[in-house]
Amino acid sequence: MNREQLEAVYDENLTRYLRDWSTLLAFPSVSSDPEHEVDCRACAGWLSEHLTDMGIDAQLLETETKPVVYGSRPAAPGRPTVLFYGHYDVQPPDPLDQWVSHPFKPALQNGRMYGRGAQDNKGQLFYVLKALETLIHAGRLNVGIKVFLEGEEETGAASTEKALPDWKDKLDADVLMVADTGTVRSGAPTIIMGLRGIVHVGLALRGPNHDLHSGVHGGLAPNPAQGMAQLIASLFTPTGRVMVPGFYDGVHPPTKRQQELAQTAPFVVEDYAKEVGVRPAGGEPGYPPLERVGFRPSLDINGVHSGYGGPGAKTIIPSKAIAKMTMRLVPGQSPQACLSALIEHLRSHTPEGMVLDIVDQDVGGPGISLDPDSELVHRAERILNQLSDQTTAFLWEGASIPIVSSLLKASGAEPLLVGFGREEDSIHAPNESFSIEQFKQGFLYAGLMLAELGID
Amino acid sequence: MNREQLEAVYDENLTRYLRDWSTLLAFPSVSSDPEHEVDCRACAGWLSEHLTDMGIDAQLLETETKPVVYGSRPAAPGRPTVLFYGHYDVQPPDPLDQWVSHPFKPALQNGRMYGRGAQDNKGQLFYVLKALETLIHAGRLNVGIKVFLEGEEETGAASTEKALPDWKDKLDADVLMVADTGTVRSGAPTIIMGLRGIVHVGLALRGPNHDLHSGVHGGLAPNPAQGMAQLIASLFTPTGRVMVPGFYDGVHPPTKRQQELAQTAPFVVEDYAKEVGVRPAGGEPGYPPLERVGFRPSLDINGVHSGYGGPGAKTIIPSKAIAKMTMRLVPGQSPQACLSALIEHLRSHTPEGMVLDIVDQDVGGPGISLDPDSELVHRAERILNQLSDQTTAFLWEGASIPIVSSLLKASGAEPLLVGFGREEDSIHAPNESFSIEQFKQGFLYAGLMLAELGID
Repeated sequence: MNREQLEAVYDENLTRYLRDWSTLLAFPSVSSDPEHEVDCRACAGWLSEHLTDMGIDAQLLETETKPVVYGSRPAAPGRPTVLFYGHYDVQPPDPLDQWVSHPFKPALQNGRMYGRGAQDNKGQLFYVLKALETLIHAGRLNVGIKVFLEGEEETGAASTEKALPDWKDKLDADVLMVADTGTVRSGAPTIIMGLRGIVHVGLALRGPNHDLHSGVHGGLAPNPAQGMAQLIASLFTPTGRVMVPGFYDGVHPPTKRQQELAQTAPFVVEDYAKEVGVRPAGGEPGYPPLERVGFRPSLDINGVHSGYGGPGAKTIIPSKAIAKMTMRLVPGQSPQACLSALIEHLRSHTPEGMVLDIVDQDVGGPGISLDPDSELVHRAERILNQLSDQTTAFLWEGASIPIVSSLLKASGAEPLLVGFGREEDSIHAPNESFSIEQFKQGFLYAGLMLAELGID
Repeated sequence: MNREQLEAVYDENLTRYLRDWSTLLAFPSVSSDPEHEVDCRACAGWLSEHLTDMGIDAQLLETETKPVVYGSRPAAPGRPTVLFYGHYDVQPPDPLDQWVSHPFKPALQNGRMYGRGAQDNKGQLFYVLKALETLIHAGRLNVGIKVFLEGEEETGAASTEKALPDWKDKLDADVLMVADTGTVRSGAPTIIMGLRGIVHVGLALRGPNHDLHSGVHGGLAPNPAQGMAQLIASLFTPTGRVMVPGFYDGVHPPTKRQQELAQTAPFVVEDYAKEVGVRPAGGEPGYPPLERVGFRPSLDINGVHSGYGGPGAKTIIPSKAIAKMTMRLVPGQSPQACLSALIEHLRSHTPEGMVLDIVDQDVGGPGISLDPDSELVHRAERILNQLSDQTTAFLWEGASIPIVSSLLKASGAEPLLVGFGREEDSIHAPNESFSIEQFKQGFLYAGLMLAELGID
């Protein structure tokens, strides 16, 4: 199907799309809240029926917590299979009093759909479903399709991740399609070319068996607040390069082609400074911001806590200090090796007289990178250029979507990460919304992409 | 009066002493709790009347908060004046359910008086008052006496300190007598030979204007949790010597005589390790523990807080970090100069892209030291040796009693710090107590000391 054909179907069915999208948004499928357990399950049930009605064989795959909505439709002979990932759970709607309309009574205003999940991810997954439906009804869906809609993305996807190895047959695919991302600030259509991997470590440093009087013990007792500061400082050079031996092993500079493409999503220091209140003075010295966030790993201290934090003074030597840190990793780095190197560094730099506990550790997955020369990326670029008067941007994201790494591993597929979110959609915040224009662009992109993948 | 005479009076009057001591303990004079404001004032009133009844002209000196109970009695011609400092306020009694008897219904059990303040400081101040009373009634108090009992020691004594300069005439004295300290672990009578001064600084390091996503911003935004760790680490060498320029200016090694005397209160590493769960591995390298706590200054991190501290991971770059630190200073160091040097160091080491705020600062006073060759110390030693089968210990304390520095300055007096507290008295904890034996030892020491000071 071409763009005109898709647009004709879209125009004819928009009222129904909006009605069904509203129904989907009305389920308060807040995965973090046990009170909404029943709503999550109801939402999954509705989606499963919806897939079946669309002509996709659907079922619920149980996990230890929320079920996955899984639907499949075989490929025409010789055609590839697309695994489509989305999530039907949403963030909590708090603070409720800041919503103009009710978060779970979707409202269409000034061309935007308002409601929790309007964009993330119910809005974005729904335009893909409607594109699939269009192709199926027109007899033009040649690719095989495997729909995988999970219910705990907003709470870390632990039980979904855990179950993936059991579902290898169900996930086996050629392309992993994800519509859970956004565009660059200008609004130009955007292909996510890379995601960083993530590793988390929580640690505690123990000293005295109770908080001590800092007069009686100052100069005697080892001080975990001081020790933790020294331990954290030992991880970095004064200017911010990570000192963990082996941390940068396997990190490659971006290729010429990657550097060129990355310039389609330029980093504007002034915009950044305006948005976050500081210049991008963090991270590793010697690399421009775009490279630091897109092609270099980082080690980020997420929190450190020890001793007194109230008003005025409390003259203690704290008995304990805790810290939390994450590593963001690029392709080429081994998450497990980086975790081991970090823990080894922490152990070997533990100050005298104190005991280090690794309280928790989690390997969220490796960094991923799309091949700029892959036919899949070229196709996506051509389609996106058709749909916008702006040239497609290529973005190496600093963030991580751990389940994408796991799905890539389980499916053997090539990733395709294109979404139409924007800053003004206010995901995770009050008054989340998604414009009909963004929805339509997503619908056309998904329809053209799925059609074209079935042709060749 | 000699020891036998004092003991005779003590034995004859003990029942009355215990009754009045119990009355004093029954006032819940918790200075930190506004609900006990009236009890603090009632306690001060009772003490004022009690002093008057003893023959000491008494009044309440108002401050911005709790009144000071002040009493005076002139010296015989040519005799010195003793300023006696104590405090009538007490710590809160929480946790109440851990008390065997009620904290404000004093109970005598197995030769110990139980109740909040039984030792700190109502028990210790009361034996001094009873010794004074004995000398007055016997016509043997030749020294002038100025009694100064404040009501906010447990909350920092800020308004008492503030008022001191206005009371110079009322404080002018030759000897400042304080009975708010304890003995060494062995129980040997103990003269406190030194106290460290204290300076407090609270600081904040600001980065981004809100907590940031550590994936999107890791490697870009300056991280205050990391920055604060680096800032704190910059204060010390890896082995713990303070790196603030000028910090050790004016610090002198202990004299031979001080070193000898300090050995009367030996530092036993195994006892220390047993008590606090760690060996004395903190502080400055190259000095034995006794010297580190008694004759060397320290810089102690009391707390540091930034970002996430809950369970699991939260992938943020915190917008802010705070820290609290105190310096313990020895005689020879200028508290103001040390404060300025610390702040200057913090400012010059503030990591790029972040803003340092000095949130609060407080100069609690300089370190003080008693002259080992002073006649006052020799007299105290002789008297204490009479009262115990253990030889008197000379202790250079690491802790601070800021108001002592201020009272020394306001009075021009020579300090005399002897008290009979012990670890098992559980001050500031449930079931605080003071034994009749400790009370009697204190009574005899105070009586002999005050009598002897009036002789020569």
